[in-house]
Amino acid sequence: MLKFDEQTQIANIQGALALRSEVEAIVDKVYAQGFDNIYYLGIGGTYASSMQAVTYMNGKSDLPVYVQHAAEYYTTGNRRLTKNSIVIVSSVTGTTQEVVKALEEMKEVGATVIGFIDTPDTALANLSDYVITYPAPGTEQLKFFMVADRLMKLNGEFEDYDVYYQELEQHLATGLIEVEKKAEAFGKEFAEKHRHDAMHYFIGAGNQWGAVYSYAMCYWEEQSWLRSKSIHAAEFLHGTLEIVDETTPVTVFLGEDEQRPLSERVAALLPRICANYTFIDTKDYPVKGISEKYRGRILSHLIMHCVTQRIDAYVEKLNCHPLDIRRYYRQFEY
Amino acid sequence: MLKFDEQTQIANIQGALALRSEVEAIVDKVYAQGFDNIYYLGIGGTYASSMQAVTYMNGKSDLPVYVQHAAEYYTTGNRRLTKNSIVIVSSVTGTTQEVVKALEEMKEVGATVIGFIDTPDTALANLSDYVITYPAPGTEQLKFFMVADRLMKLNGEFEDYDVYYQELEQHLATGLIEVEKKAEAFGKEFAEKHRHDAMHYFIGAGNQWGAVYSYAMCYWEEQSWLRSKSIHAAEFLHGTLEIVDETTPVTVFLGEDEQRPLSERVAALLPRICANYTFIDTKDYPVKGISEKYRGRILSHLIMHCVTQRIDAYVEKLNCHPLDIRRYYRQFEY
Repeated sequence: MLKFDEQTQIANIQGALALRSEVEAIVDKVYAQGFDNIYYLGIGGTYASSMQAVTYMNGKSDLPVYVQHAAEYYTTGNRRLTKNSIVIVSSVTGTTQEVVKALEEMKEVGATVIGFIDTPDTALANLSDYVITYPAPGTEQLKFFMVADRLMKLNGEFEDYDVYYQELEQHLATGLIEVEKKAEAFGKEFAEKHRHDAMHYFIGAGNQWGAVYSYAMCYWEEQSWLRSKSIHAAEFLHGTLEIVDETTPVTVFLGEDEQRPLSERVAALLPRICANYTFIDTKDYPVKGISEKYRGRILSHLIMHCVTQRIDAYVEKLNCHPLDIRRYYRQFEY
Repeated sequence: MLKFDEQTQIANIQGALALRSEVEAIVDKVYAQGFDNIYYLGIGGTYASSMQAVTYMNGKSDLPVYVQHAAEYYTTGNRRLTKNSIVIVSSVTGTTQEVVKALEEMKEVGATVIGFIDTPDTALANLSDYVITYPAPGTEQLKFFMVADRLMKLNGEFEDYDVYYQELEQHLATGLIEVEKKAEAFGKEFAEKHRHDAMHYFIGAGNQWGAVYSYAMCYWEEQSWLRSKSIHAAEFLHGTLEIVDETTPVTVFLGEDEQRPLSERVAALLPRICANYTFIDTKDYPVKGISEKYRGRILSHLIMHCVTQRIDAYVEKLNCHPLDIRRYYRQFEY
């Protein structure tokens, strides 16, 4: 399989799950101190992960948890983010300039910052009150969700927290490897068919909304230099649908959380108005050892990432375009 | 001028502003009763207007005000929306099915609903505790902002509220007519140049984010059947920029609120990487009688709407495509 290192991927996931005792110690401490609001802070890809974590909690928790966009913070501000607020942030480089600016202001305000900062001794690491450093690709969501789960556990909203994490620790890493193997043929075929699309529409809802948002922007646009647009399934039906015809490339990400019906509605409509659609349904990917009731919690967006990773590997090869080069980002000042 | 009825447009704006005593009576009452959170509820175009109202308040107010997406509500839910919450909603038809479903559930919860419902005796009118009916195109944002302003006035955050509204009542309607006249030549030229674009990118921040979101989706996609993508100025720099080259059609909406610098940053970059960009800057459109300090509050997105209205009139004519026909929306069940 192309660009597939089974042992490293297993180790990455297992290692991320092993951060849990560290995460718990931090979350238990800030929870015990009391707080007014909780903010997942992000921009670009981390904004997408933040939306996923908050959507995840919205349906399950009474906790006041919100997404805060970094650049909106240092321009518009947010007067409900106070010295008693908790801020959760993630960064690979530790230097994302908008997040640095936002965190500097949040530290002035006095908020408590939990940072998953993969490069030590960077601006973002230094601005965080608690830093966890674990630089393994594809683990950001796991980290964000571990914080969310611990918060809900402490808030009396996740009774079987221990059972759940036991299942993840035993079965998640290997299960996702199996998903990726199963998705291999599909990924290759999809890449072959769509790698020259003039525009590709990605539709999703619930935790798949953050997934399509980041997939269209961080993978297709930024890494593959392919034009794409993400649209929330519910919003698609309020405008975007009118530009769809027989040949329009549209892909729906179907997940397994509460918003699945919104994507199913789009999936039911598409065959009547389009002949170039694809459905990627996480239900098609069983994961041994993870209870059915937990699939919507975490599995569906991790599964989707395994599937899209297969597409990207083939797009990179077939389009002769290394995914790590950038035309503009961090190439010069602007 | 094409599709331009000066007297009707003046009457519409003036009439919307005249709703203020009605709005004040309602807002004063619900404010006095006490509340935990305030939600602007929407989907599609009303979701965009909700984002504008909430972004407007975020920088100015301590009030706990949030956007609630209608379809996300009846799927994922929101446990912080309670019997003590205030919900603000707007609808032309009064029958938008996702909003009906959301409001039905919110009424079960017991929230108080203020509805700007333009068709009486409809589902949404009946679900609202307070209904204001004023069916004049282009007034939704004024209505949403009147509620916001009154809330901030009551919360001690808008001292010169009366002076501000005096200026609007005296100068807004005629001022916007002058803007539209001034934008006429530009609108025609832009339409001629871009009416066959395979894809057009619209970028904005602050109250111009809701503006580009709805312009790309509700006007270009839904009404003109033209492909377009909206992207927040800060997010554009985290992915989308990589697909821009010499020929990519990109338009930046520059407004006058706190997030203007985010769009200015994109506007400074674009000429270095693209030769097919347009900047629409509300600062180019003076409005007599409205103080400089108030322009960012309301003028900039109303001005932008006047400008885009000029584009749409010419796209409709030149593309021989009536803006009020739909391929799919409300044409059959799905």
